[in-house]
Amino acid sequence: MVTTSPLALARSARSAFHSLAYSSTSAREAALMAIAGEIENNKESILAANQQDVDEGKKSGLSPAFIDRLMLNEERLGWITTDLRRVATLPDPVGEVFDQQLMPNGLKVRKQRVPLGVLAVIYEARPNVTVDAAGLALKSGNAVILRGSSETLNSNRALVDAIHRGLASTGLPEGSVQFVDSPSRELVFELLKLHNDIDMVIPRGGSALHKYCRENSLIPVITGGIGICHEYVDASANLEKALPVIRNAKIQRPSVCNALDTLLVHSDVAGRFIPLVVETLSKDGVTFRVDEKAAACLPDPLPAGVELAGVNDFDTEWLSLVLGIKVVDTLDEAIEHISLHSTAHSDGILTETETNAREFVARVDSAAVYVNASTRFTDGSQLGLGAEVAISTQRLHARGPMALRELTTYKWVIEGEYHARL
Amino acid sequence: MVTTSPLALARSARSAFHSLAYSSTSAREAALMAIAGEIENNKESILAANQQDVDEGKKSGLSPAFIDRLMLNEERLGWITTDLRRVATLPDPVGEVFDQQLMPNGLKVRKQRVPLGVLAVIYEARPNVTVDAAGLALKSGNAVILRGSSETLNSNRALVDAIHRGLASTGLPEGSVQFVDSPSRELVFELLKLHNDIDMVIPRGGSALHKYCRENSLIPVITGGIGICHEYVDASANLEKALPVIRNAKIQRPSVCNALDTLLVHSDVAGRFIPLVVETLSKDGVTFRVDEKAAACLPDPLPAGVELAGVNDFDTEWLSLVLGIKVVDTLDEAIEHISLHSTAHSDGILTETETNAREFVARVDSAAVYVNASTRFTDGSQLGLGAEVAISTQRLHARGPMALRELTTYKWVIEGEYHARL
Repeated sequence: MVTTSPLALARSARSAFHSLAYSSTSAREAALMAIAGEIENNKESILAANQQDVDEGKKSGLSPAFIDRLMLNEERLGWITTDLRRVATLPDPVGEVFDQQLMPNGLKVRKQRVPLGVLAVIYEARPNVTVDAAGLALKSGNAVILRGSSETLNSNRALVDAIHRGLASTGLPEGSVQFVDSPSRELVFELLKLHNDIDMVIPRGGSALHKYCRENSLIPVITGGIGICHEYVDASANLEKALPVIRNAKIQRPSVCNALDTLLVHSDVAGRFIPLVVETLSKDGVTFRVDEKAAACLPDPLPAGVELAGVNDFDTEWLSLVLGIKVVDTLDEAIEHISLHSTAHSDGILTETETNAREFVARVDSAAVYVNASTRFTDGSQLGLGAEVAISTQRLHARGPMALRELTTYKWVIEGEYHARL
Repeated sequence: MVTTSPLALARSARSAFHSLAYSSTSAREAALMAIAGEIENNKESILAANQQDVDEGKKSGLSPAFIDRLMLNEERLGWITTDLRRVATLPDPVGEVFDQQLMPNGLKVRKQRVPLGVLAVIYEARPNVTVDAAGLALKSGNAVILRGSSETLNSNRALVDAIHRGLASTGLPEGSVQFVDSPSRELVFELLKLHNDIDMVIPRGGSALHKYCRENSLIPVITGGIGICHEYVDASANLEKALPVIRNAKIQRPSVCNALDTLLVHSDVAGRFIPLVVETLSKDGVTFRVDEKAAACLPDPLPAGVELAGVNDFDTEWLSLVLGIKVVDTLDEAIEHISLHSTAHSDGILTETETNAREFVARVDSAAVYVNASTRFTDGSQLGLGAEVAISTQRLHARGPMALRELTTYKWVIEGEYHARL
């Protein structure tokens, strides 16, 4: 098999973008619907290709958790097509007009939302990202280059085939979705240099992938998806109501970036609350890394599953059923800890004191700041965006969940009557 | 003299940012006013320092144009302080609340505008940028690291002294404005690696500086300020009115990025319009690079100051009194030429045909797209922003003139009543 060069892929994507960018809202909606239909019509071949990936993964000793992430079945394909049809009917951000002004000299000035251009999405072993990313990109008028992990090459190839058939059947350029059909890492390196043809890189994976992209890319990179998340239980918090929020943030889906990593508890309530947390969450299989003051709130010797926190434990994204617990004496100390240890993803306060909530919101500068709610809500569909392509923890362009609008930019449109500048 | 390391500068800026970000609108406004006062109070020492730069520049053989750019005098200092006082009173973008939603589950969601963080501005020999950049950064709650060119080191040092005195007198941290007090290029390289402490790099200078930043920075870089700008004179344009617009775009300030570089003329009117343009603008000292078809509209042999365009002439930002002229047969051909040769800075159409104007606006994807107006309006104060720190020609975060709002980001604030995710 001859692999297409990254430059050729990027040029094809750029050329497809030129027609895609001026396609109508209804054409793009129809394309997403057609793709969902093609995925359903070809589910046997998609599942067969996925089975091949699963078999090869098992043979090469991938962990059951890894296999579970890459595995597709009828139900999961159903989720994928349902999501795609929902994205198809979301409002189209392209063409939105904002910041209109009539200048004193009579110039009419406005901004107009346009697609971002050509996106490159580099992701790990989750075949659903192939369809999610293509769907969000196409819906917002962008071309996209997909580079999934080598362990899902067969699944992705089958899904991209269905995407291409869907595009072709509705007259949008097939080149709008490009697929790096190779496990070569060298091609990723080459892709990251193509700043004339690619407008944005979205890495989806662990911190090593983000670091690699930041260090090797000449294209702007959206870093994100790494969450060391905190909840601070204030002295005035309703502890009975706080407990299920903490439990939800920790155990509802521990493997994701918005799950709780560190619980900060005000010393006034630590003696009551920490034993309650340990007792309750232990039943869910959670283990604990506690600081000295938190340990002093627990029986001596420490209960099973509880150990003293090591030096790096408050700088660790657990992605599993582990919870750090630390006692703080003041709101200030909680905010200070968060400012030093948070990855600025999602951090919250549980409190009944309005002024403390206000101060926390003002001073904690994370992508999502919570008052009396679980950090698990940092998610495109939970926050009203309908979907998400990534959760940004950097500060430029977009923060937090990124969906359709975050895949656009704007141009200034200035209309005059043969105006010259004085 | 011991030079402070870039890391130490960045850390000081980060630490100052922590208080600056939570300072009040009025404190920041007062600081800018105080800085303007300090510049006035210290004008003798500032002008003396600048004289030193001018003398050294002359000795080392810098061009008169270069010397003119770095030279300060009482009048120019007056412009600087007037601009600073105007920025001081612009509306404060920080704290603005937008995209409020009440979710079906009762969660209250909003976005809230916050300063971007620590900015690094790397610029060439214009000492006014020292004050402009510091003023815009401070007004929007950002700390800033300034790195001017070695030829203006004395001027910049004197201006930064005044800035620090102004900050100190109003109680804002002096560390909010850091100055790289060294001509070393090695320090710029080091600065560009500090992605943990610096949030955004703004290069202000030629394309070599932008390329250097893009290739060496681990921090997001705002590229911009390079403009190959076009005006397309449609068949239906009012030629009498179009001529002064073209003249304005080319000659009002030829050395800047929004000046006109290439004139495209529809073949139906080329025979009448091109001789008119050449005759009129020749009197202003403009010379011309014309394609074969444009040459055919002119006397043979070509008039003085007119020559056939070379292969790179339509890909050149002239920054001087040179104008490229090309004849096109259709609107399509004009748009195609712009899409291939524009740097996506500022491009316009002159027409009386509504549908052509609409098509041009829809299909030309530049930061600023004009109908019947000079490209010279792409400027923060002309477009209602009151000022500008740069003109972005990249697509992420901000396009076109960047002022206060473009130096901010947002955080999501989510308020619940002990909400857990289902």
